[in-house]
Amino acid sequence: MTNVTMGILHPGEMGSAIGAAARVAGALVLWASEGRSASTRKRAEEDGLADVRTVERLVTESQVILSVCPPANAVDVAREVAAEGFGGLYVDGNAVSPDTTREVGSIVTAGGARFIDGGIIGPPPRRPGVCRLYLSGDGADEVAALLTGGLLEPIPIAGPVGAASAVKMAYAGWNKGSQALLMAVRALAMHEGVDEVLLAEWARSQPELPARSEAAVKGTARKAWRFVGEMEEIAATFDAAGLPDGFHRASADVYARLANWKDTPAPPSVAEVTKELTRNPR
Amino acid sequence: MTNVTMGILHPGEMGSAIGAAARVAGALVLWASEGRSASTRKRAEEDGLADVRTVERLVTESQVILSVCPPANAVDVAREVAAEGFGGLYVDGNAVSPDTTREVGSIVTAGGARFIDGGIIGPPPRRPGVCRLYLSGDGADEVAALLTGGLLEPIPIAGPVGAASAVKMAYAGWNKGSQALLMAVRALAMHEGVDEVLLAEWARSQPELPARSEAAVKGTARKAWRFVGEMEEIAATFDAAGLPDGFHRASADVYARLANWKDTPAPPSVAEVTKELTRNPR
Repeated sequence: MTNVTMGILHPGEMGSAIGAAARVAGALVLWASEGRSASTRKRAEEDGLADVRTVERLVTESQVILSVCPPANAVDVAREVAAEGFGGLYVDGNAVSPDTTREVGSIVTAGGARFIDGGIIGPPPRRPGVCRLYLSGDGADEVAALLTGGLLEPIPIAGPVGAASAVKMAYAGWNKGSQALLMAVRALAMHEGVDEVLLAEWARSQPELPARSEAAVKGTARKAWRFVGEMEEIAATFDAAGLPDGFHRASADVYARLANWKDTPAPPSVAEVTKELTRNPR
Repeated sequence: MTNVTMGILHPGEMGSAIGAAARVAGALVLWASEGRSASTRKRAEEDGLADVRTVERLVTESQVILSVCPPANAVDVAREVAAEGFGGLYVDGNAVSPDTTREVGSIVTAGGARFIDGGIIGPPPRRPGVCRLYLSGDGADEVAALLTGGLLEPIPIAGPVGAASAVKMAYAGWNKGSQALLMAVRALAMHEGVDEVLLAEWARSQPELPARSEAAVKGTARKAWRFVGEMEEIAATFDAAGLPDGFHRASADVYARLANWKDTPAPPSVAEVTKELTRNPR
């Protein structure tokens, strides 16, 4: 990866880890601190990302820009970059629908960039083998070659812009959708006073589910606030394909109700989640 | 179980197997052939159930009546039994919401019966250890004692009428809801041309999912027509508890689209299911 200069907009938990992974593998990784929070700055500094302060400078100095932001901001970030006349490789790595990805692509290519669709699967790449960046569209191989050698594994796939995002939507559609469903099922059982019976039945016939449902609460509650937009993108993706969008509209609803656990020191219990999810019974 | 006389309304795949299991354990099991299909008759005869022809006679001769029918018919079956003045133990074993169960209970108790809520979990009890009948409400222990010793395991639980149905709704809410979601996710990936990529990613990070998604198609498509009403009952149960009903509205939609595979000689492929589920993309 030596010698590539990569700008990351805007380094959250995932983006900062990707930046650190690329930096260790030899890349110069830039970020722009203007308007970002103190916690973002702290993380970027710890990860050794070089602060160029403004998006304007980041655009001027980067060969590759990787957008890793909340799904709802993907289009705005693209507009900001296009407005600065970025002419390099723009990779959207966000959890957005193929339609949103194509919109991002139109914006940055109109601004002079080449556009590559990206889909990130796995936790932040702090160790090898856990996180992959799927890439599609013209230039996917080129970007993959530039990023090879770090903790983030680039995987170019056949198919146009939209394909990498579709992989992400399908993967997260199961992963986060099924966890939302599992939490809702536990909440129903607890609300109806039959949670112990359900757990005993699961122990006999679905022995992995008691632990999986606990893990869903522990693993998602504190991140739930940022899953809401992703679930909405998945719902839109399902709808565009003619599939029912209700699974992920409901998942968005579940995660929205857990949003208050953002940044809490410890995850909630199943009972606390149940109380929040069943707050307004009929 | 010796000496109990149990009427089953109306013996489908599950009801007939439950009847056979009770019969082998010593019960006299009655059914009423009037107005039922040839395939129901064939199954009931093979299972050795005694045909008393009419619901009127079944009501007169049964100590216990077990209702095992499509969810949408549960209330009508109860009305039919109440109209005949049944004064024994009426067990509703259907996959219906606690609210529907309570409605069934009001109907049969107004007709003179005692009402026990039931929830059946597992495949038809053709062998030991696979199928359980959860029972709740006054008389649950009594019914459990009457049914003990057969291939169907009765499990009385604490809690009022509605509790056993809630166990069923929560259990099937995950089991059938997650299978619908998994089929929809495969359909999305295939529709978007990234199914092989998704399967390869799953092979690395969720190695059980390729087989589970195939099993969901094989295991549900030919039974999908009768899951639709059950998903609607689960959606109503979620809604009553203040939980989002979209998971199971969407599941009902998925199963409704698979209804044409009822009674087909072989289950469809994932590709055939995809075609049906994504028939009207935007």
